[in-house]
Amino acid sequence: MSVTAAKGFTAAGIAAGIKENGNPDLALVVNNGPRRAAAGVFTSNRVKAAPVLWSEQVLASGQVSAVVLNSGGANACTGPKGFQDTHATAEKAAEVLGRGAIEVAVCSTGLIGVLLPMDKLLPGVETAAAQLSEHGGEKAAIAIKTTDTVHKTAVAEGDGWTVGGMAKGAGMLAPGLATMLVVITTDADVDSAVLDEALRAATRVTFDRVDSDGCMSTNDTVLLLASGASGVTPEYGEFADAVKTVCADLARQLIGDAEGASKDIRIEVVGAATEDDAVEVGRSIARNNLLKCALHGEDPNWGRVLSAIGTTSAAFEPDQLNVAINGVWVCKNGGVGEDRDKVDMRYREVHIVADLAAGEATATIWTNDLTADYVHENSAYSS
Amino acid sequence: MSVTAAKGFTAAGIAAGIKENGNPDLALVVNNGPRRAAAGVFTSNRVKAAPVLWSEQVLASGQVSAVVLNSGGANACTGPKGFQDTHATAEKAAEVLGRGAIEVAVCSTGLIGVLLPMDKLLPGVETAAAQLSEHGGEKAAIAIKTTDTVHKTAVAEGDGWTVGGMAKGAGMLAPGLATMLVVITTDADVDSAVLDEALRAATRVTFDRVDSDGCMSTNDTVLLLASGASGVTPEYGEFADAVKTVCADLARQLIGDAEGASKDIRIEVVGAATEDDAVEVGRSIARNNLLKCALHGEDPNWGRVLSAIGTTSAAFEPDQLNVAINGVWVCKNGGVGEDRDKVDMRYREVHIVADLAAGEATATIWTNDLTADYVHENSAYSS
Repeated sequence: MSVTAAKGFTAAGIAAGIKENGNPDLALVVNNGPRRAAAGVFTSNRVKAAPVLWSEQVLASGQVSAVVLNSGGANACTGPKGFQDTHATAEKAAEVLGRGAIEVAVCSTGLIGVLLPMDKLLPGVETAAAQLSEHGGEKAAIAIKTTDTVHKTAVAEGDGWTVGGMAKGAGMLAPGLATMLVVITTDADVDSAVLDEALRAATRVTFDRVDSDGCMSTNDTVLLLASGASGVTPEYGEFADAVKTVCADLARQLIGDAEGASKDIRIEVVGAATEDDAVEVGRSIARNNLLKCALHGEDPNWGRVLSAIGTTSAAFEPDQLNVAINGVWVCKNGGVGEDRDKVDMRYREVHIVADLAAGEATATIWTNDLTADYVHENSAYSS
Repeated sequence: MSVTAAKGFTAAGIAAGIKENGNPDLALVVNNGPRRAAAGVFTSNRVKAAPVLWSEQVLASGQVSAVVLNSGGANACTGPKGFQDTHATAEKAAEVLGRGAIEVAVCSTGLIGVLLPMDKLLPGVETAAAQLSEHGGEKAAIAIKTTDTVHKTAVAEGDGWTVGGMAKGAGMLAPGLATMLVVITTDADVDSAVLDEALRAATRVTFDRVDSDGCMSTNDTVLLLASGASGVTPEYGEFADAVKTVCADLARQLIGDAEGASKDIRIEVVGAATEDDAVEVGRSIARNNLLKCALHGEDPNWGRVLSAIGTTSAAFEPDQLNVAINGVWVCKNGGVGEDRDKVDMRYREVHIVADLAAGEATATIWTNDLTADYVHENSAYSS
């Protein structure tokens, strides 16, 4: 279903030869209108790849006609030439689609510090344009994979309108955003201001709360495009819920496919004085390598959770902290609680509840365990 | 040499039976005077182990007669009973040494959330006291090991006076401080105010800049005791240098023995606007799991360095960043620099220079690579 689930969109995914192994590496998503409204959220890393710098300019107008996405090279840390290459990519798409280049967003993912093979990429844009189809969403989702083992798509249906999307990302998943490229489309008839509000509200509690390995990418991009082709303008809350549903679904798939992971870990912080406190504590727990190793070993090591909480500035008293792992309150009042042997750690999903006993606010952060496979994958993956 | 290199100190290390495997697990260090001045630096984790809470009180007076250290249990997250146990340990040492309990510091290391076997620990204090010796420093250093593969000692000699110390720590090494117990002794005739100043100045640029895995312990303690037995009062700068030398030596040994590490990584940040900026950038690089995996694979992946710098709030322009790995400037002006194939990664020590081109300040942070052995060690190490 992917980006072509909503009416008014066509897409394609091809192998342009950017990846040496011949796998699909170029995707094109086109908004055929009647509207071409768009919103975008980008990495908060201050070292931004050329396509991010370009697409931020494109999104300033709230108008996007097409998105070119490539895997096989991030076009990050590539200097002025890298930016020229992104611009040339947008120009080429604009030319073949009969649109202005400033309406073409570009997304890249792959190795940092390497120029893209433009002699393959530019002809690839032409090839992809020739294959655009209302059924091309799946192929587009496949073409943006890097170390992903599966492609990721999601759909939410409204009353006469649809939101659908695709995502890539399998590591370097961390707040603000994860290392991900995400394109979401809708045929709802809404303007860019509504898209922007709904997208920011959704990413704040979905992609921004996925923290696989604490590493933040130079290329993260999440785009939301509206064609208006359904002719329906949904009530805002309903529309925002659908966008959030798709984002949450894709975010959960990203965590489920994180590099080398054997456990998906849901960290639910409750009893926090503020939501900011809850997020800070959740992230601190999510980034604790010792805990992530322990959970890999199916060890419900609550001492690591307390150590991680103790490094934050959140409001709490050490002797009032409570921690449950998979439903067993192994830590009560900062000390030993129920018998840790009661914790069943056999399943892939691990659920940690950290109760700060300091208020009513909550937040949930998702992470993965740390495994030898993660090390192997990332010590072999060259820059 | 260890803690008995300086005159006026005796020490012992024994197997009290706290560790189930029968290895040495209890150390005693005694200051026989004439002075009993002391200073201490403790973990900044807000979840502090009982011995830290106790020893902070002891150090408030600037006076320490003895230190009891145990491995085999951290006595952290153990509630009021844990604090009572620490107090009983100090009382026992005070009783057998004929001193006040409030002059006895206590340090513990090992598993969190488990009460210490006091029926073994208290008789152990008596046994250790009976074995106190001017040559006992080595045995004391051995008795505080946990996952350490070697015991760590260091000595610096002044003109008629000496500074010597011991350390334990092999993981969970992170700023403020590392997971470490350190006792340093001197026979210099200096008061507790001088000790405090020299110790804080030394730890700030040594132990506080070791960041093996970003995890901060509940038990970190660094103590500096002066006996005055040499009768010499050194010039402050000279004394502070000797303390720093011993701290730097021990910190380097901690990094060299970090859990599962195959590379010791020296991250030198230069050209920073402020020292705080340099430290923030160095820590961000040191905590990047993807970089740590890449360096394990002997891949000079400078893109990961730039990604890590980009997450900080330090002053820099992305297109002015320069990065050298083992002397080769692989990144210049935020883009591709010298040929990365020139980087020789065969040796255990890796030297990264990150030039922010924003000022004159510098800082050096030490870390390790991330390895499958780290994962194995910490997924098997139960709470």
